[in-house]
Amino acid sequence: MVGVVYENLDLKRERSRCSFDKEEITNLIDGGKEKTQERRDLVQYILSDPDLKDPVPIEYLSHYERYGAELKKACLLVQKMRKPNGKPLDIGVGPAAVILKEGNALGLHFVMFMPALMGQASVEQQQKWLPRALNLELIGTYAQTELGHGTFLRGLETKATYDPDTKEFVLDTPSLSAYKWWPGGLGKTANYAVVMAQLYTKGKCEGIHPFLVQLRDENTHEPLPGISVGEIGPKLGLNSNDNGYLGFNQVRIPRDQLLMKHSQVLEDGTYVKPKNTKLGYATMVYVRVFIVQDMASVLRRAVTIATRYSCVRHQSELKPGEPEPQILDYKAQQNKLFPALAASFAFHFAAENLWNLYHVATENIGKGDLQMLPDLHGMSCAMKALSTSEAANFVETLRQSCGGHGYMVSSGFPRLYGVATASETYEGENTVLWLQVARYLIKTRMDNAGGKSVAYLIDTKLPDNKPGDLGLDSIINLFQRVASGYVDLAVKELEGYSRQGKAPHDAWNQSAVQLIKAAQAHARYLVADCFVRSVREGKLSGPVRSILNELCEFLLIYWLVERSGDFFMFAELKAQQLIELQSKYMELLGTIRTYAVNLVDAFDIPDEALGSVLGCWDGNAYQRLFDEASKSPLNKSTVHRESFEKYLKPLMQSNL
Amino acid sequence: MVGVVYENLDLKRERSRCSFDKEEITNLIDGGKEKTQERRDLVQYILSDPDLKDPVPIEYLSHYERYGAELKKACLLVQKMRKPNGKPLDIGVGPAAVILKEGNALGLHFVMFMPALMGQASVEQQQKWLPRALNLELIGTYAQTELGHGTFLRGLETKATYDPDTKEFVLDTPSLSAYKWWPGGLGKTANYAVVMAQLYTKGKCEGIHPFLVQLRDENTHEPLPGISVGEIGPKLGLNSNDNGYLGFNQVRIPRDQLLMKHSQVLEDGTYVKPKNTKLGYATMVYVRVFIVQDMASVLRRAVTIATRYSCVRHQSELKPGEPEPQILDYKAQQNKLFPALAASFAFHFAAENLWNLYHVATENIGKGDLQMLPDLHGMSCAMKALSTSEAANFVETLRQSCGGHGYMVSSGFPRLYGVATASETYEGENTVLWLQVARYLIKTRMDNAGGKSVAYLIDTKLPDNKPGDLGLDSIINLFQRVASGYVDLAVKELEGYSRQGKAPHDAWNQSAVQLIKAAQAHARYLVADCFVRSVREGKLSGPVRSILNELCEFLLIYWLVERSGDFFMFAELKAQQLIELQSKYMELLGTIRTYAVNLVDAFDIPDEALGSVLGCWDGNAYQRLFDEASKSPLNKSTVHRESFEKYLKPLMQSNL
Repeated sequence: MVGVVYENLDLKRERSRCSFDKEEITNLIDGGKEKTQERRDLVQYILSDPDLKDPVPIEYLSHYERYGAELKKACLLVQKMRKPNGKPLDIGVGPAAVILKEGNALGLHFVMFMPALMGQASVEQQQKWLPRALNLELIGTYAQTELGHGTFLRGLETKATYDPDTKEFVLDTPSLSAYKWWPGGLGKTANYAVVMAQLYTKGKCEGIHPFLVQLRDENTHEPLPGISVGEIGPKLGLNSNDNGYLGFNQVRIPRDQLLMKHSQVLEDGTYVKPKNTKLGYATMVYVRVFIVQDMASVLRRAVTIATRYSCVRHQSELKPGEPEPQILDYKAQQNKLFPALAASFAFHFAAENLWNLYHVATENIGKGDLQMLPDLHGMSCAMKALSTSEAANFVETLRQSCGGHGYMVSSGFPRLYGVATASETYEGENTVLWLQVARYLIKTRMDNAGGKSVAYLIDTKLPDNKPGDLGLDSIINLFQRVASGYVDLAVKELEGYSRQGKAPHDAWNQSAVQLIKAAQAHARYLVADCFVRSVREGKLSGPVRSILNELCEFLLIYWLVERSGDFFMFAELKAQQLIELQSKYMELLGTIRTYAVNLVDAFDIPDEALGSVLGCWDGNAYQRLFDEASKSPLNKSTVHRESFEKYLKPLMQSNL
Repeated sequence: MVGVVYENLDLKRERSRCSFDKEEITNLIDGGKEKTQERRDLVQYILSDPDLKDPVPIEYLSHYERYGAELKKACLLVQKMRKPNGKPLDIGVGPAAVILKEGNALGLHFVMFMPALMGQASVEQQQKWLPRALNLELIGTYAQTELGHGTFLRGLETKATYDPDTKEFVLDTPSLSAYKWWPGGLGKTANYAVVMAQLYTKGKCEGIHPFLVQLRDENTHEPLPGISVGEIGPKLGLNSNDNGYLGFNQVRIPRDQLLMKHSQVLEDGTYVKPKNTKLGYATMVYVRVFIVQDMASVLRRAVTIATRYSCVRHQSELKPGEPEPQILDYKAQQNKLFPALAASFAFHFAAENLWNLYHVATENIGKGDLQMLPDLHGMSCAMKALSTSEAANFVETLRQSCGGHGYMVSSGFPRLYGVATASETYEGENTVLWLQVARYLIKTRMDNAGGKSVAYLIDTKLPDNKPGDLGLDSIINLFQRVASGYVDLAVKELEGYSRQGKAPHDAWNQSAVQLIKAAQAHARYLVADCFVRSVREGKLSGPVRSILNELCEFLLIYWLVERSGDFFMFAELKAQQLIELQSKYMELLGTIRTYAVNLVDAFDIPDEALGSVLGCWDGNAYQRLFDEASKSPLNKSTVHRESFEKYLKPLMQSNL
């Protein structure tokens, strides 16, 4: 068989009738032809290195062994990618994930520690620390969350008290619940951290500030005196990452390790306030846009696996007496796959659009203009919450669409779910974000003023839909009406409570469930609107435009039908219209079926990056499942000798 | 602190104001006072045995080590529980789960292998094999699913060909996709299996039949000649179970190892058909009712963890300036917890009701009356699919309600999710079951005849609701109207396709998405109806009746509001009614808040069985999280020496 590349015949047939240029989609997702080439070269370089391959699949290792195996790859990768005069590869993101699929111990150094230095350290501090960080002479993490405190920053307990006599800050962990808990890479890897702590000076608490703290000796890696640091144990996912805990017992750091770009403490202990408290928004926006982009990528991987497997898997019967059909031909199966396929594009465009806005906003900030920030912040909250919750749900639906085999770790789904669902909680827990978005919507309606993304709530009677019109613009308008309807209902409720003498915070709590629905409808409007505009305005060939148009319409109908009650309630949807939309939906399932396999091919995900026996390009799913199982250490011998002799045999032979 | 039992003050306050008799709820769930006592004694016996404790938490072990550690506990447990003249403890179910939380290698012996012998072996066969199985002289599993075949039994490929010359069956695996794949305990543990294979005799295929096959030598445990057996590798959950694969290369077994209760092959190869093909339903019903009961138990565990943690966790602020409130007081949090709490009771009653029907049905079968079976089968399909999908979704919602800490394995949630979501796929994949239920509904409507559970679809115009009436009976009626509405719509669609000349199977496929919705509405009606009746008819004290009534109303409203579109569409729901229901829902959140903690206490789940640092009775969540992390082998030393010297140090010191 040498030289013969296997290709499953069902996949081959689909590929032989591709109606569009796959490369156009690939470039669209990468952000251009050059970017595609760059990515392919880098991935090729990484994959061709024998040092970076796993000798044993990491799932078979113990918790302890796994840390070492994954750290090795991360360190070697960074080493090998150092350019003579460039910066090392940022292995927190992108192509590094080809071999580091569940986080890695150096990730937070790039994704959080360095951005924190860049965003919060003064120019002098940056001059001192950034080159060392960039060079990985020190490895950092970002320590904010505590055992007892997550969402609510003001509740953090870790203290940094200024001592003017020695010109030092004294860091202290006053209680068990004040231990830092969760930072990635903190357990065994990082020797520095940006630590968020309550700043006390001149007897007064000035609130949460970032401090640069050395945790371990640079030569021996032993924790420094007063520092208690360790690893927090196994998690649902992301187990290649030594998430850690951290406590301080009167640890002293120099005054100039308070990161002082925005606020300062002078030598005598005088506190100097930041000029603008909204600047912190920019970093949050950055991280959240990054998450939206990541969720599009998670969806592409999951939908590639499920679509290819559905193409090669034959099961049951459609027509009595005929051979078992591909499961891809069942409408119930298409109904599980294609919404996720469409959503992967929706969130791709959403992230792209947010990046563009982010760049404009940061340029404006440079000129002292912060006007765009609150609206951009609201958008990024909404899209982070929507993209992560949709991605997590879709990954599970896609896993289940592969039946029992999806439950195997070798399918790749459990790992993808671990990644997707973690992001529902970190960087702004979703329920908290929805309520923040809702607050922005209510404020907009009450003040009759707000940013561009909420303009439809301002000073305007929403246009009535033309009866019977269910085009894309009309559906977007319906989403606006639902959000607006929920907002109006909540405003009415809140005013009612107020008249009853209820305190505002009680009223807010009492309306929380509805407020979250308002925010979700608003987020769907934003993503839908961006999808429609991106397809309309993009430079696309005819065939690709028509595919994207269909996917866009399909997703909008899917979202509407799934929560039709909202549309009956607030947007005068009629039963007959819903029936028509359902028919259109079933029709689009058939249309998308014709190009689904080629579309996931166009995502151009190498088998190694996909990490799934079910989703490989060649469609040889059963052989790969079998080959992967043969790697199980339990299969190294026919009998698990120790346990058989010690437990099983005595059990079977101790007849009564 | 010796002798002083810690109890978190928030929990203590809740417990000091309990308004009902917790023991009444405990007995209700156990099935009576005596059953409660029996369970407590057994659990106490198991937990007090030092041999049955884990020396190291299993999550830290490698895949290989874990198998041995869990097998040890399973074997010792069975040994210790042997009674001088009784049968050994069935460790597939119940109290054994206190120490075996993610399946175990002996589970299928009790849950599938022995029931298969009892249900499918002839009297002579049972006399020969059952005592040995009961005595664990042999350990069996049940091998049905193949690498390429799950749902569709007729598609199975494994062959058993009768050879009249030697009076043997020859078992053979004709292709890779014919390998048995998934059976629990098959990988390294079982030495016998009931194998489902296509029976060939006299040149003709007689379809799928069960064969008793010896896999391994009883003394050496080595696989017998022609048998290829091994373990399939790590999974999303249930990793204490060595799921396996199995292939046959011309393996011969005696004729009398075809299990011959229902059909036989005579010595000359003559095939004798079973008298009734519906008898197989009874076993399927049995397993599915067991699953519904298990899902109620999963929900009780998950909701206990989340409710207690929500009581001790303080976060953010409701009223500006006041201390951080318990998160249990946030409506958005209650909205995540209480539907699951209510559903745990709904599925408890559903399982109880199904057990009762099952017992009547099997009694009737003994008398030759099979009339109840099809309807019972339909009910068990519907409730299996609904209970597993709801349980899996609720477990994830509850996990996320605990924020990041829910993502820790030590929270207990990842394990519970692994159990719940597996049951969405095994023993009838849910989408397949929904479509079976739908077929039963459509048939009932078209024939105008069917069993008791679908009586509302027969020969009847559904009563109009009294305007404005939103009592429990009305809501149940609304669920009927939704199911009925979807069925009517599907019938109309199917007839339309038929007139267009579409083949029936194409039409069915085209309507699949709507048909699934019809089946789901039907299942909710069944569970809701049973909940209402169980509370009405149960022997309950006043306070407990009132609590259960509130939970019942709450769940019904939750289900209705979540899919209000169906009710606008098919049940003439009015916007104003929906607003009223939403208000009632918010009001009930407050009511349930007052007794939620005491209610989960009443589930009487010992800490060891809960297996969650977040949900322990004493509420000492942070200390337990910390203590659990301290068990991590990565924390045995301050520095992970090998990897630091070999990878991290060189990386940090190779300055450019």
